[in-house]
Amino acid sequence: MNTAPIVNPWLAAVAPSPIGETKRWVLGRTFPPERPLIDLSQAVPGYPPALELRRHLGELLLDPTMHGYTPILGTPVLRETYANHLTDFYGAPITPAEVGITSGCNQAFCLALMSIAKAGDQVILPRPHYFNHDMWMRMQGVEPVSLDFRPGSGAVPNAEDAEKLIGPRTRAIILISPNNPTGAVYPPETIHAFYELAKKHGIALLLDETYKDFLPEGTRPHDLFSRSDWRDTLVHLYSFSKVFALTGYRVGAVTAGTGLMAEIEKAMDCVSICPPRLAQEGALYGLRHLLPWARNNTAGLKARADMLGQGLERSNRWRLVSIGAYFAYVEHPFVGTPSTEISKRMADEENLLTIPGDMFGAGQERFIRLAFANVTDDKIPTVLERLERFGV
Amino acid sequence: MNTAPIVNPWLAAVAPSPIGETKRWVLGRTFPPERPLIDLSQAVPGYPPALELRRHLGELLLDPTMHGYTPILGTPVLRETYANHLTDFYGAPITPAEVGITSGCNQAFCLALMSIAKAGDQVILPRPHYFNHDMWMRMQGVEPVSLDFRPGSGAVPNAEDAEKLIGPRTRAIILISPNNPTGAVYPPETIHAFYELAKKHGIALLLDETYKDFLPEGTRPHDLFSRSDWRDTLVHLYSFSKVFALTGYRVGAVTAGTGLMAEIEKAMDCVSICPPRLAQEGALYGLRHLLPWARNNTAGLKARADMLGQGLERSNRWRLVSIGAYFAYVEHPFVGTPSTEISKRMADEENLLTIPGDMFGAGQERFIRLAFANVTDDKIPTVLERLERFGV
Repeated sequence: MNTAPIVNPWLAAVAPSPIGETKRWVLGRTFPPERPLIDLSQAVPGYPPALELRRHLGELLLDPTMHGYTPILGTPVLRETYANHLTDFYGAPITPAEVGITSGCNQAFCLALMSIAKAGDQVILPRPHYFNHDMWMRMQGVEPVSLDFRPGSGAVPNAEDAEKLIGPRTRAIILISPNNPTGAVYPPETIHAFYELAKKHGIALLLDETYKDFLPEGTRPHDLFSRSDWRDTLVHLYSFSKVFALTGYRVGAVTAGTGLMAEIEKAMDCVSICPPRLAQEGALYGLRHLLPWARNNTAGLKARADMLGQGLERSNRWRLVSIGAYFAYVEHPFVGTPSTEISKRMADEENLLTIPGDMFGAGQERFIRLAFANVTDDKIPTVLERLERFGV
Repeated sequence: MNTAPIVNPWLAAVAPSPIGETKRWVLGRTFPPERPLIDLSQAVPGYPPALELRRHLGELLLDPTMHGYTPILGTPVLRETYANHLTDFYGAPITPAEVGITSGCNQAFCLALMSIAKAGDQVILPRPHYFNHDMWMRMQGVEPVSLDFRPGSGAVPNAEDAEKLIGPRTRAIILISPNNPTGAVYPPETIHAFYELAKKHGIALLLDETYKDFLPEGTRPHDLFSRSDWRDTLVHLYSFSKVFALTGYRVGAVTAGTGLMAEIEKAMDCVSICPPRLAQEGALYGLRHLLPWARNNTAGLKARADMLGQGLERSNRWRLVSIGAYFAYVEHPFVGTPSTEISKRMADEENLLTIPGDMFGAGQERFIRLAFANVTDDKIPTVLERLERFGV
């Protein structure tokens, strides 16, 4: 192949995202109609955005003023509308200056991490981790320090365990709840304990709540925004991709005190200049008109999760570790065989594409992630059948 | 204000983009109809994308399959179409695997820089620099090493001068041609000399040709892609924002050997997952159908540049250093007064918004950038009048 210029060794040392790698397992294969591929690898909604949102964007396209740059952190009206949404959701006042719009939640994470940590610093990352978090830290020369969950915890990490990992180079703790990859919903007391820990040590708590809208209606996942001092500790990350099915639009958000937001804004300017304009208009339309639509989808996903979860609970071979709106994290029955080998063989033999725990960090060789949001309900019995049959 | 968590000192040390700062000079002011604000600060086309492109995107919005993630480096059809476009433009074969689509050219730069340089490395950056290049390097802990142009060179840097700056930590040289902020079009022999220099020292040449489409028709700005070994040295950056007036869509591209592209892909996955889908469709439509439309706009811009350039040549007070399709770089007549003070006073007294040379790097206190693409032809005489009257 081609020689490249000397490559940054920090990037060279990072493995590509497993999404691409697992998709390559089935690349070029054809599948018989009676045994189609079922793809449980990527977290994507199984439906397009609401037709009324798409029609609205179609009208905006004809407006000559809808195609230029916006302010770096998004249009004032979207920042205000999102701040009001958060204020309602958390029952605590959040101002437009404390929210910034980004090109997706991955980008929100990248910018937030950069605003707090530089090469040589450490950040505590619960394991299994979301792979892009781990990848970005390593690319930045920031050292991820892994925090494992205790057996029987339902994949919920423990703040006391985390405290033992804090040292002079620690700058932040990452939490994702509802979690990717495990689906686990962290109890408010867990989130509060991590907040207190971060506050005590003068480090940041980066809390990714991309899946917050898939919690049962009326759930308030934590009360951190009600605390007068949250801006000293908390950085909150969000995505409009799942709630409004806007994955291809690239629009997310970060919430932080204005001091940190000024740093995030500089990085956002470099990385994107501004979030895509139409994506911002889509998110705005969603917040204004589509929360009931989203709630309806959530209910459907909850029913699918229950169907899958109950099926897995009945299994004598597979053990359900945790399950949420988008993901189930399961323990496979093949002690001593790495999960990558199991996932690969399931793709080959059962036409079932999953992501092995191995790809979410070391020590995850017993686990497999099932991302079930992008399959239809009628496929869930087939998923369960294939799992039961596999390797027998 | 709010206290933030401990901020990454590399970000804290970087000043925000001057675009925002200069816009704040006129924020909240109102302007009389006979002396309207003329904004020469930001490089944006003065027209929306072609109506046929917008109608095309409106139709795609109704297609349920147009809203999801694409592959990390863009849709295969756009990569192929863009690779073919480059092949035609440069008269040298470039394959789809050697091009990647990004969320704008700023992002292409961020990813390309990361793929080559890490904290502690040095990169040679001609001065005046494009501020986001300088900002991103500093945020990454990469040290920009400034390369000044020689007086009388028309703001064209010299490869011999650059060689004196190369040391063991040097990883790359950045070039932008046609240049931002000066508008200077570097002669092929200059670009070739920098290429040979980079090749000789085993470092990369990052060449940003965002404004290539505004060169006279049929111009081939260099022959680097015809060299069999370009993949060992060259990384090429491009934007669809200016040529198709897609600034708010966020779509650009990077061209490199496949080895380096694999590293860029990992970083792109973290920063954006993929470029925005509709933006990719817009770029695809543009490449397929709108090159004549773009060429027509280019001719109009060229006429405007000539009008401004000839006016400045006639001035006894202002000296034209260089001019291109989007920018003129001029020396102001106030020896001893920093350009920031001049620009600020022109905004206050003449309702003329410009970016001072100071904001493009140290030693630029005699210069001011005029970005004239987003004003109409009929305003050019007024711009010249205001410049002549100012400070007399």
